[in-house]
Amino acid sequence: MIEPDLVITDVNLATMDGERSAPYGMIEQGAIMIKEGMISWLGLQADMPAFDALATPVHSAKGAWLTPGLIDCHTHILFAGDRATEFEQRLQGVSYQQIAQQGGGIASTVRATREADHETLFVNAKGRLNSLLREGVTTVESKTGYGLDTENELKLLEVNKLLAEHHPIDIHSTFLGAHALPPEYKGQADAYIDIVCDEMLPRVAELNLASAVDVFCENVGFSYEQTRRVFDAATKLGLKVKCHAEQLSNQKGTELVAEFAGLSADHIEYLDESGVVAMANAGTVAVLLPGAFYFLRETQLPPLELLRKHKVPMAIASDFNPGTAPLCSLRLMLNMGCTLFRMTPEETLQGVTCHAAKALGLSDRGVLKVGMRADFALWDISHPAQLSYQFGVNDLLNLWILGKLTQN
Amino acid sequence: MIEPDLVITDVNLATMDGERSAPYGMIEQGAIMIKEGMISWLGLQADMPAFDALATPVHSAKGAWLTPGLIDCHTHILFAGDRATEFEQRLQGVSYQQIAQQGGGIASTVRATREADHETLFVNAKGRLNSLLREGVTTVESKTGYGLDTENELKLLEVNKLLAEHHPIDIHSTFLGAHALPPEYKGQADAYIDIVCDEMLPRVAELNLASAVDVFCENVGFSYEQTRRVFDAATKLGLKVKCHAEQLSNQKGTELVAEFAGLSADHIEYLDESGVVAMANAGTVAVLLPGAFYFLRETQLPPLELLRKHKVPMAIASDFNPGTAPLCSLRLMLNMGCTLFRMTPEETLQGVTCHAAKALGLSDRGVLKVGMRADFALWDISHPAQLSYQFGVNDLLNLWILGKLTQN
Ligand SMILES: [Zn+2]
Ligand SMILES: [Zn+2]
Repeated sequence: MIEPDLVITDVNLATMDGERSAPYGMIEQGAIMIKEGMISWLGLQADMPAFDALATPVHSAKGAWLTPGLIDCHTHILFAGDRATEFEQRLQGVSYQQIAQQGGGIASTVRATREADHETLFVNAKGRLNSLLREGVTTVESKTGYGLDTENELKLLEVNKLLAEHHPIDIHSTFLGAHALPPEYKGQADAYIDIVCDEMLPRVAELNLASAVDVFCENVGFSYEQTRRVFDAATKLGLKVKCHAEQLSNQKGTELVAEFAGLSADHIEYLDESGVVAMANAGTVAVLLPGAFYFLRETQLPPLELLRKHKVPMAIASDFNPGTAPLCSLRLMLNMGCTLFRMTPEETLQGVTCHAAKALGLSDRGVLKVGMRADFALWDISHPAQLSYQFGVNDLLNLWILGKLTQN
Repeated sequence: MIEPDLVITDVNLATMDGERSAPYGMIEQGAIMIKEGMISWLGLQADMPAFDALATPVHSAKGAWLTPGLIDCHTHILFAGDRATEFEQRLQGVSYQQIAQQGGGIASTVRATREADHETLFVNAKGRLNSLLREGVTTVESKTGYGLDTENELKLLEVNKLLAEHHPIDIHSTFLGAHALPPEYKGQADAYIDIVCDEMLPRVAELNLASAVDVFCENVGFSYEQTRRVFDAATKLGLKVKCHAEQLSNQKGTELVAEFAGLSADHIEYLDESGVVAMANAGTVAVLLPGAFYFLRETQLPPLELLRKHKVPMAIASDFNPGTAPLCSLRLMLNMGCTLFRMTPEETLQGVTCHAAKALGLSDRGVLKVGMRADFALWDISHPAQLSYQFGVNDLLNLWILGKLTQN
């Protein structure tokens, strides 16, 4: 018998394991064992194997609920500056054009991010990660995209590496050089894509600084053809791809990312059925971003019924960013997924656990199951639906990452 | 010279004092002095009077921003039970009628609240108050309304008293016996209003357990005439009145509460210009509740332009409650006020400071000014608009209530 390092008893488990037939893969009156940072056993407490109770720490959860640690699979936490006064100007009636003319919008974030050193960016991102950690988040995807030249995009990837080394949250780095056209390339989008493909991507791959490559495919971003060039180059370098797709119009970015067996298509409010079918066939995850939908007062809903019909896994994420979603809260997205998108609480919880893991290409987390990482959150709730229903009351009791207690 | 008890230097002040012409009543590079829990001096640091620097604690704010402590002037924090599984059922397609037939809806909250003892209700409410405190909230209005009989409504008022005694937040108790018709009075609303007026209100007044009386005036709540009876009885007992008005339809509840020189009319999505004019003449505050608007997916906006035109002060509040706004966050309401109602960040900040104080009939807070309570929050922000623009990142540095440091 292998002695566990930790046993949690008197616990209700929302395993999110699709192989269990109960909603949320529930095991009520359960127990769970951890060995070397991984889950070594779980099940009904009545079935718990014997262990050396004197030598093993036992944590009684007193009937609280355990879920996988939450996963925020789409964020832009790496930036400097803020756009609060621009937000104020907009509400005072100043137009986007006027703000852009005075150097506002994404250009101001790019300027501030280029000027910022590693430490400033690290400290900014750390504060955002701390907020997510306090909400039960244990894995975060972090995109570049406000550097927009080789030096500054690499700087952001290096900050991701520092965060991965120094913050308890597990960071997954995504290269988003093709986020927006930098001001110095105005009118020369193809030339900028040359730099992304020929200069940035080889460095990213060589230095092993990103696990995926993303593109903003949109009429205000990069075209279908430009997106294809980036995906081609990334794929040749062995990097996985994903896409900001169909947020404001249907550019067929989703079909394109599916063609490359991409990890996810994100936003997708304007996606049609052929795109949904392409995702289903490719195993591409739909990442829904209700925070941006809310903040932009979007009215076009993502095609929920089609995604359900074709069994496309749906993740939800914060999309935290200074322009279109200044909401650094994954818990709020659980409520917004239900309230705005009419997802069920089980779908939203899948969206930040098992499906979010799949969106990051990770098969070692997002589900409570033997052999998975011991990343989990213990909640003072009476039912898992409460995580999506109630917002703002601190219901996180404990958080473990790789079996290590992180917050209490 | 009177020595201060505390001096805060190197601070930017958003005084919210309407007598100052700068936006937010701003004083940049300011300082503020506290004596016996009140503000004894504030102004430009360069103009600061001399004080005994050896005997007086000095807090350097290092350029951070100080605002009045935030005021949540409309909440329903006193309840037991939760409605998460009902929320889940609704999203699974179960109708309101079916849920009501199985004893759900407000009836389930009333049942659980009646069954709960003082301690349970105190602990539940304390958790909610702690969440608000962590956001910089220093004053909270707390309504009854889930007891709905004399014994249980008085129990809730007693819990408010306990909270006022034991929690650092300053609690203002509102009696909302006419919140909903209790199940045992089905079809006999007038008879229930008799109990409210003849039995409950005299006890409330005699025991001095509430500073205001509220009614839910709506076609699914109480009629204009029933509301008038409650306001008549309350006024005769010397209690101030306020009204849940015009949330789902125009019942003229706002004109009625204005006729009684009421403190506030709350919700008011369906208010027309004659109601707005009545408010302006009576000095009644408009309490806007974007959380309920969001959660109910309401599309009828409150009459912002009319309220501005007639200079009616606008407050915003969380309306935290288990049925229509399970969002225990006043900071989120700042963002929702801007995003959903298109208020400016200055209007939303007025809405949780000076105008919220007015909605509670309090003239000793909500503004940084000599003689006011030393209730204030220090924020790690570059501009007051950031409080409404950004959500979720913990930007509260310090909070003082009556000059006493509460959180750091
Ligand atoms: Zn994004
Ligand atoms: Zn209310």
